[in-house]
Amino acid sequence: MLRIGSVVLGVADVRRAAAFWGEALGYVPRDGLVEDRWVVLVPADGAPGVQVALGRSTTPPQHHPRVHLDLYAADAADQAAEVARLVALGARRVDWDLYPEDPDFVVVEDPDGNRFCVIDAGRSQGEP
Amino acid sequence: MLRIGSVVLGVADVRRAAAFWGEALGYVPRDGLVEDRWVVLVPADGAPGVQVALGRSTTPPQHHPRVHLDLYAADAADQAAEVARLVALGARRVDWDLYPEDPDFVVVEDPDGNRFCVIDAGRSQGEP
Repeated sequence: MLRIGSVVLGVADVRRAAAFWGEALGYVPRDGLVEDRWVVLVPADGAPGVQVALGRSTTPPQHHPRVHLDLYAADAADQAAEVARLVALGARRVDWDLYPEDPDFVVVEDPDGNRFCVIDAGRSQGEP
Repeated sequence: MLRIGSVVLGVADVRRAAAFWGEALGYVPRDGLVEDRWVVLVPADGAPGVQVALGRSTTPPQHHPRVHLDLYAADAADQAAEVARLVALGARRVDWDLYPEDPDFVVVEDPDGNRFCVIDAGRSQGEP
């Protein structure tokens, strides 16, 4: 059966993105290999989890992305701490125009402008 | 630690997409719940694996997607069989303009035009 090997994100600077996403997720380059145009990150210490691949891309990121990642934090306190940690690593909080009232998610973008959500998974595992 | 909960794909028709991606990956709706605007698919029988969420979106899919999935097939024969199976489910093979010579991947798009790759993971787990 087909399985999801990687989520591939387009970036301008593969090494910078590898550093950001590695710290963000606790991932490391597969086989220790980082190329100028391509890297596959895997969970550290052989932990399970989908790979994140980063490839050089000139396609611009979308403001309301057609495809994006939802990252799960354990609860509201963890969500706030993780968003702060991501910002310290080089992410930016997005002034999202489609927030509902009392959202359970925070929209963030990586150093390459790829937007994703940090979800309070303790409260809900719903949209978006 | 933050973990990748879901990959979220924008679609026009959530129920059609749920049927396609469920068959494609062997996934089922979480808690059996499919809404008109949103569904989260999980591996059947509690198997491990990242979730795939499908949400109604008016953002158009990109021809050279900024973010996409790489699906892994076991080897070349499995890759060919899986691409044929996906096409029978409603996917389309893409006339990809950036294929290298002798690629180890096939570019396909789902019924909503979201492009992804089917990789011969036995041969390579490299780009893209």
